[in-house]
Amino acid sequence: MRGWVLPDHAPGMPCGLGPGCYTAADWPSAVTGAGRMVERRIPTLRQPQRPPRQSRQRSIDQSRPRSPKRESDVTSMHEPRFDVAGIGNAIVDVLSHADDAFLATNDLPKGGMTLIDETRAEVLYASMGPGIEASGGSAANTMAGLASLGARTAFIGKVRDDALGAIFRHDITSIGVTFPTAPLTEGPSTARCLILVTPDAERTMNTYLGACTQLAPDDIDAEVIADSAITYIEGYLWDQPAAKTAILQAAAQARKAGRKVALSLSDSFCVDRHRDTFLELVDNHVDILLANEHEVMALFGSADLDQATAALRGRCALAVVTRSAKGCRIVSAESVTDVPAETVDHLVDTTGAGDQFAAGFLFGLCRGYEPKLCARIGAIAAAEVVSHFGARPEAASLADLVKAKLG
Amino acid sequence: MRGWVLPDHAPGMPCGLGPGCYTAADWPSAVTGAGRMVERRIPTLRQPQRPPRQSRQRSIDQSRPRSPKRESDVTSMHEPRFDVAGIGNAIVDVLSHADDAFLATNDLPKGGMTLIDETRAEVLYASMGPGIEASGGSAANTMAGLASLGARTAFIGKVRDDALGAIFRHDITSIGVTFPTAPLTEGPSTARCLILVTPDAERTMNTYLGACTQLAPDDIDAEVIADSAITYIEGYLWDQPAAKTAILQAAAQARKAGRKVALSLSDSFCVDRHRDTFLELVDNHVDILLANEHEVMALFGSADLDQATAALRGRCALAVVTRSAKGCRIVSAESVTDVPAETVDHLVDTTGAGDQFAAGFLFGLCRGYEPKLCARIGAIAAAEVVSHFGARPEAASLADLVKAKLG
Repeated sequence: MRGWVLPDHAPGMPCGLGPGCYTAADWPSAVTGAGRMVERRIPTLRQPQRPPRQSRQRSIDQSRPRSPKRESDVTSMHEPRFDVAGIGNAIVDVLSHADDAFLATNDLPKGGMTLIDETRAEVLYASMGPGIEASGGSAANTMAGLASLGARTAFIGKVRDDALGAIFRHDITSIGVTFPTAPLTEGPSTARCLILVTPDAERTMNTYLGACTQLAPDDIDAEVIADSAITYIEGYLWDQPAAKTAILQAAAQARKAGRKVALSLSDSFCVDRHRDTFLELVDNHVDILLANEHEVMALFGSADLDQATAALRGRCALAVVTRSAKGCRIVSAESVTDVPAETVDHLVDTTGAGDQFAAGFLFGLCRGYEPKLCARIGAIAAAEVVSHFGARPEAASLADLVKAKLG
Repeated sequence: MRGWVLPDHAPGMPCGLGPGCYTAADWPSAVTGAGRMVERRIPTLRQPQRPPRQSRQRSIDQSRPRSPKRESDVTSMHEPRFDVAGIGNAIVDVLSHADDAFLATNDLPKGGMTLIDETRAEVLYASMGPGIEASGGSAANTMAGLASLGARTAFIGKVRDDALGAIFRHDITSIGVTFPTAPLTEGPSTARCLILVTPDAERTMNTYLGACTQLAPDDIDAEVIADSAITYIEGYLWDQPAAKTAILQAAAQARKAGRKVALSLSDSFCVDRHRDTFLELVDNHVDILLANEHEVMALFGSADLDQATAALRGRCALAVVTRSAKGCRIVSAESVTDVPAETVDHLVDTTGAGDQFAAGFLFGLCRGYEPKLCARIGAIAAAEVVSHFGARPEAASLADLVKAKLG
């Protein structure tokens, strides 16, 4: 059976995930070449279909039980053009190896994300070792992961019309992500994140937001939001007053169009800075919450994950809490389910782990899988990205990788 | 025994490698942190020293027989400030995955380097998948490898004062390479090399030379050249008339100061374009030649390596011909010696293999090792760089890697 419906673990959740689905059998033709997305066949059927009874084809579409599709859900609106639209900071990462002594000398909190101004960025860059530059940004990384899985995605974020902005635009559009946001023609330059990767594969991020600070409600493309099954918002945006307004506007537009809103909490320090307004956002505007255990504990001011989990239950239809090597926890009003992590043979750089987990998880939701399977896909995508330097998939196609892993 | 002398395989070669040597025991303190070079202790002793008779320390300095140091060689000039000064194109690489069909569609000769203009660079970039940006350039990569091995290096090459130029300058200076060349303040932008890496790990390079075309004799820092044990020249420069003059000037300055001149042939197509003048350069200005088998065969217009090797013997004091997985061949007037390659467990991207072989080989020469051991160090450095994406060492310290491999 095909379907976009959210699983039974999130009952009572109005389904905004339209019928523009495709079976796992479509995957091989959905993604070709070096991660490049080509036009895919979008089934126009509005009725659930069974696979042929004698089909010997193994696919993840057919390998697990799924919740029944609710007819009312999928006929209530037109088929969305995009599976997921992400809104986030448009950043070029500068990744460099460093040791713990470097972090200590430069007063950098290990594993966290620190906002820095341009002067500090220049001083820190001058003291760093050689870097590699690669497009980043949390939600943008997630869109790249989704594209590699074969999803149709859009991204809203602000760059300047400079060299790094051109790199960001090239990279995200080259993988088939629609990027409608006009660049700044004056003002601050394209954002950079100076990322120090220590020998234990942990990343410590230092972000000069630059042009991202200029993201405004006008940048929210209402048509894109209304035409996306899920609007995915990066919590880091909450640091910027103009972006807050833009987020609330996007969430309202998505809900009005009968779509879903997902939020990533991004960073425990960011949650600490904005605890009350984050809770208000989760309670009133969010259907799907993605966070790691530190962020969830920060959200509820608790040092105990079980306590934080209990406080989280029922605040939004579905939440997933990642716990690094300990796997993740799926939380709804009805149940709490722990899912193990994927084994990683060679941990190189944890940059982008959460972003790619989100990509796999959202991809699964868009295909109507149970949250446990969504989490498994998320874990596979995360395991791929931590096995190499950089925050976006290096695998030519995450779709192929996931299919190979799930058998 | 310590020493900078060239080995017996290159007899009659006036030794320009000064006495600023240090034993393998100095290595651990010579390189610290994430590939960053710190001030090293430079012994002022002018006399050969024996290690303590009962020393149990295993080091590559002590593990192989070496040729005796010739007193006359090392007292003829002052200690050089640099081990190697490289002259080459200052390029930022844009590395991307692609398949063979992409190469065919875009008419790109697989494994080669094609010079392209800015318009073609823009068209090709627009059709490429997402990239990572990393400082490159053949001789600059070699200087990065040498720095990671603990050598003192300088690099001469031309960038523009733009964003990519700033990245190039940051990366090369952050690893301790002296970079005296002033950037262009107008004219063509910093050079970019669009590198397509196919699933077989082969790289196909497309270079927009930009600012590199403006390298001129004035850019050759005479003090740096005279103060470098070896001046290492990248053959790619031979494509530019102004750079040709600059190279001949640098070679003359190096020889006048009693130093050595090394040349990399860079690319068989480049050799094809300039066969006669390359031969004249090798015959009259070069002490150490580095090339791969295709380049050597192109140099002598022969399809047979043995024939090309025979033609090469005696044209310069020492030559080393790399042969990918088949190892390399050391050629002097007196002998031809084949050395096997290092085993590579996981071949990812051959970009920079030749550059890093050159780094290891030149490093060994600077320490007075026999060419066979120099080639082994080159093979270890090359094996490291082909095991990951990108053209410069990812290992925190190549010195540590080499020591671990050699035991």
